[in-house]
Amino acid sequence: MKTPLPKLLLSVSLLMVLQLSFSQDTIRYVDAGTLLMTGKAKNTDSIYWRVDSVDAIGFPPNVKRLTKHSAGIAVLFEANSSVIRAKWKLPAEVYMHNMTPIAHSGLDLYCLKDGKWQFVSTGKPAKGTEQDQLIVQNMDGSRKQFMMYLPLYNGIGDVQIGVHTNATINKPAQPGINKSKRIVVYGSSVVQGASASRPGMAYPAILQRRTGYDVINLGFSGSAKMEPELATYLATVQADCYVLDCIPNPSPEQIRDRSQYFIKYIREHQPNTPIVLVETVFRQNGLFDQQIGENTRRQNEEIKKAYEKLKQEGVKNLFYIESEKLIGDDHEATIDGIHLTDVGFMRIADAILPVIKKAMNEKK
Amino acid sequence: MKTPLPKLLLSVSLLMVLQLSFSQDTIRYVDAGTLLMTGKAKNTDSIYWRVDSVDAIGFPPNVKRLTKHSAGIAVLFEANSSVIRAKWKLPAEVYMHNMTPIAHSGLDLYCLKDGKWQFVSTGKPAKGTEQDQLIVQNMDGSRKQFMMYLPLYNGIGDVQIGVHTNATINKPAQPGINKSKRIVVYGSSVVQGASASRPGMAYPAILQRRTGYDVINLGFSGSAKMEPELATYLATVQADCYVLDCIPNPSPEQIRDRSQYFIKYIREHQPNTPIVLVETVFRQNGLFDQQIGENTRRQNEEIKKAYEKLKQEGVKNLFYIESEKLIGDDHEATIDGIHLTDVGFMRIADAILPVIKKAMNEKK
Repeated sequence: MKTPLPKLLLSVSLLMVLQLSFSQDTIRYVDAGTLLMTGKAKNTDSIYWRVDSVDAIGFPPNVKRLTKHSAGIAVLFEANSSVIRAKWKLPAEVYMHNMTPIAHSGLDLYCLKDGKWQFVSTGKPAKGTEQDQLIVQNMDGSRKQFMMYLPLYNGIGDVQIGVHTNATINKPAQPGINKSKRIVVYGSSVVQGASASRPGMAYPAILQRRTGYDVINLGFSGSAKMEPELATYLATVQADCYVLDCIPNPSPEQIRDRSQYFIKYIREHQPNTPIVLVETVFRQNGLFDQQIGENTRRQNEEIKKAYEKLKQEGVKNLFYIESEKLIGDDHEATIDGIHLTDVGFMRIADAILPVIKKAMNEKK
Repeated sequence: MKTPLPKLLLSVSLLMVLQLSFSQDTIRYVDAGTLLMTGKAKNTDSIYWRVDSVDAIGFPPNVKRLTKHSAGIAVLFEANSSVIRAKWKLPAEVYMHNMTPIAHSGLDLYCLKDGKWQFVSTGKPAKGTEQDQLIVQNMDGSRKQFMMYLPLYNGIGDVQIGVHTNATINKPAQPGINKSKRIVVYGSSVVQGASASRPGMAYPAILQRRTGYDVINLGFSGSAKMEPELATYLATVQADCYVLDCIPNPSPEQIRDRSQYFIKYIREHQPNTPIVLVETVFRQNGLFDQQIGENTRRQNEEIKKAYEKLKQEGVKNLFYIESEKLIGDDHEATIDGIHLTDVGFMRIADAILPVIKKAMNEKK
């Protein structure tokens, strides 16, 4: 008997509906903590924190709070799935006038393609704290290595990566980030990643993709003030190069009073590791607000003096980057005068990377 | 009699408190509507809308809604105030995962310095709809020309600019934007300005500052689908150059069915005005999501066919920009695969501006 046309159409529609629900049902989730973590200074009590709570005991309260932001941490994995989804939990809904929700609370997925990390797509947070989002679908199902950056200005917990049930997902056999080489960046909001458009555009993440090294983001927004407790901690973090980009936060007087001790302490405890000092990005609004302009000039004056004194004293493997080299001269690299946009982050990465390479090659 | 020291200190403290409250009390506000507006196609019933409600009667509902976003509108003024503040009202609190509050609901201030527009600072929206914010202070009190861009993805009302009571503020005698030359850009979210970091980084605003011409932002996020009503309207907007950057929104079939009529209608009613057609930015996530990739390829295929047919038919003053010239080849110019960051906007401005200049010089 020939099926009448309306019935046939109904069957076809039903099949399509079934196929759609089938493709949604066939996602399985894997705990990101079982995959390969990068961008971590050491093991920590919560795997998504940057500093272990015991190490952070003596830190100023703001720094301690910010160690729980996942800036710079990324999860590496291999999968042959045509779809990648993610579930994640945020401790709080964040509002920042100068950052996108994708940057402060979202995920950023890259794929290793012909030996280079290439942007794929983002995990876009909805309002609220419990996230369940599609990142990418309709890929060819070939085996690929992925790297997923975590939020820059929020904590994160219970990260689950979703792939097709019939796909495999595991730690990469040959990770695209070489954890035997390591750059540690200590600094301000600029290091933590304000105001990158997405987590992968903070400049430590750009340095990480360009070098293939493990880059540790120790950016503590507004709070990188070179306290001795931070020197004590930094000196325990193994590194092939330290970058100190903390000058935006301390006052000129604090720089004068603290930087010699801070740098010498690290030098004494890590005698052969190059240290790259970065002047503060010149606050673009400081070209109009004379107080801000004057403060920025004085901050850079003080760190320059400290650098010259240390050189005179014979401190080795010390490198220095001046402000005017950092973000170009068109005044278009910031969102608000100080926090870099992706334009600023691309430029500062261009400026800092050659000095890091030189520092790592030339160390005595 | 000598004043005793404690009393003297008290008097000095009191004077300082008085001075502080004095500087807060001495702000006066001027309605931005009394200053010089740029980026407006025509007069409108609400001065902060982009299209008059009578002109918009036949528009699709989404386009009509978006005409009330103030994208591309800027206020020019001169003032000799050391401080600039602003009050503004937003019709709604907006949440966008791929935009900063400064971009969707904030203000962006530039200053004309040695004949060039230079970024000063931003009006940073707090949560809520009633805003009252400091933009910049501690400037030298010399007379300067300013331009203040309005929100990209929100409406705005009752904009008040605050200066010192003893300062003057008025329309500029020699405006830094030449309203006798005009570029009209019709397009998608990319034109409207997603995901610029701040209102002045949407590419029509970059074109405006680089040329000094009045640039009209007719970007309608997700809704630039070349309906005949939009052609009818566009043909009534006087221009020295039309840029049609709407290919991201219509389906390939809609491009096939609508673009010939759309372009010819404008050509017939504005026979001498050059028209620059822009392919869609290649969706970076389309390099992984095969359906998105295929759709983008087909969109560009259809507009290319339409362009070639129109050229064959002898349509004059038609210019064309291919996708691969638009945003570089490092895949780092978007926040989410399609929406440009400031990196993307700088690149697309670099790509489009020479064609606009050529178009305006070569027109027959």
